[in-house]
Amino acid sequence: MPAPFAYRRLVQFADTDMAGIVHFSVFFRYMEEAEHALRRHIGMSIHDRFDPADDRSRIAFPRVSARCDYHSPARCEDELRIEVTVQKLGKSSVTYGFHIFRDEAELAVGEMTSVCCCFRDGVKPRPTPLPDAVLAGLKQFAA
Amino acid sequence: MPAPFAYRRLVQFADTDMAGIVHFSVFFRYMEEAEHALRRHIGMSIHDRFDPADDRSRIAFPRVSARCDYHSPARCEDELRIEVTVQKLGKSSVTYGFHIFRDEAELAVGEMTSVCCCFRDGVKPRPTPLPDAVLAGLKQFAA
Amino acid sequence: MPAPFAYRRLVQFADTDMAGIVHFSVFFRYMEEAEHALRRHIGMSIHDRFDPADDRSRIAFPRVSARCDYHSPARCEDELRIEVTVQKLGKSSVTYGFHIFRDEAELAVGEMTSVCCCFRDGVKPRPTPLPDAVLAGLKQFAA
Amino acid sequence: MPAPFAYRRLVQFADTDMAGIVHFSVFFRYMEEAEHALRRHIGMSIHDRFDPADDRSRIAFPRVSARCDYHSPARCEDELRIEVTVQKLGKSSVTYGFHIFRDEAELAVGEMTSVCCCFRDGVKPRPTPLPDAVLAGLKQFAA
Repeated sequence: MPAPFAYRRLVQFADTDMAGIVHFSVFFRYMEEAEHALRRHIGMSIHDRFDPADDRSRIAFPRVSARCDYHSPARCEDELRIEVTVQKLGKSSVTYGFHIFRDEAELAVGEMTSVCCCFRDGVKPRPTPLPDAVLAGLKQFAA
Repeated sequence: MPAPFAYRRLVQFADTDMAGIVHFSVFFRYMEEAEHALRRHIGMSIHDRFDPADDRSRIAFPRVSARCDYHSPARCEDELRIEVTVQKLGKSSVTYGFHIFRDEAELAVGEMTSVCCCFRDGVKPRPTPLPDAVLAGLKQFAA
Repeated sequence: MPAPFAYRRLVQFADTDMAGIVHFSVFFRYMEEAEHALRRHIGMSIHDRFDPADDRSRIAFPRVSARCDYHSPARCEDELRIEVTVQKLGKSSVTYGFHIFRDEAELAVGEMTSVCCCFRDGVKPRPTPLPDAVLAGLKQFAA
Repeated sequence: MPAPFAYRRLVQFADTDMAGIVHFSVFFRYMEEAEHALRRHIGMSIHDRFDPADDRSRIAFPRVSARCDYHSPARCEDELRIEVTVQKLGKSSVTYGFHIFRDEAELAVGEMTSVCCCFRDGVKPRPTPLPDAVLAGLKQFAA
């Protein structure tokens, strides 16, 4: 089984709330940051065109679902390690799994499903098959 | 069956991302705002003491889990209506269900589970049974 | 002298940080919300076209500067009143002044300057004179 | 003249808004992150006690003022370099200056003033002189 992709993130002061811990909604931003780091790792960019000849076309991955189970709080200045695996690959969709650690303590486990879409100006986004290069890159981290 | 609790929220510019829509993590903040509005409605405050004699003790509800399914995007200046029901009441835990609408369109459906905890300075938070008054208030919105 | 425009805003839990108060950067979001409420009040929308015949042209107001002086902290569930005045109107620019109150206590004073710009797809945004209707609307709140 | 302290930060997707650029309020979070990185660099932590014998006492630096001038927008995946200098040191206060770059382009210039305070449970925070070790550390980056 391949190693998961690992993303490291320091908890910042603005991530916390008056309970003294990271606000639960911020874990979803951490997971997205890790997902985007994985995507850059396999050669993708947020600015990727769908159609190389159309500089305003974009490939994007709107969320279908997101969830997180919280085991233990994260605090300011914690050094987090977010491990990402690809749990499921559909024709157009991808489901990522996330495990968020501080050292050996697993603080949270999450999952997000996105659909690969083509965006063009003035046209309603529509699902489109995952490009072959994306598929090959994601498969490296398939659980 | 009782009516759900309804919370209204205008989408603000800072809630959006470069895809032109509300960032998916912001839906969790909307759900929390709706939950807290429900709690104020039944007489609770974020500042409620656990022990009336100890002005630094608090009742708080750390998250155990949160999830959201996204059906359709929300945009800046949308007037959202977030309906909250109490889906499950445990001894110490409460599970809320959320339906987020713009007019009649259901944009997202979510769920969050929290555990009632007692916070005291210098003491590790521990689960505590839902106070009777809280239980009675929440039952009004039980699905 | 005309009355300022007043915007009311409840402090939400997610606006706070581990110091137990509203994070200083959130005051800038409050000021923007108040500005946008003023703009809706005078008939503007974030979605206003620059050219009525071009449904992808937009009038927008990128920031040139922003500042805030903090006098006293805001806390969760505080009911804030944000008063907005128009301090200065240039040919293309507008400077807003903000006073943030909880009851009679002034918590913060801020200022933001924006430049009216035309956005069209694929064209670098450029400053454009404030439209007459916008100018007339803003003048109602000139300090 | 000493070199400024430099902090590097990748622009994340959630930092952007529907105008396709980093939301202006997020620059204040970037500046705070850079300030805190500088503070860690000189041996400080957000969790520093004011009184070593009191594990709930804290040294903290509430904001007195913050401002930013925006020259050019930042976009998703931009690699920012935030340079911090100490512009002014008072008995209890410190004013930081910030220059935010992408490569050689200066995107924004900011300033923040904070006051060193002692926090103890149940006691109103009060200004306290900057500890000698803090003063010595900050002076390394005095402009």
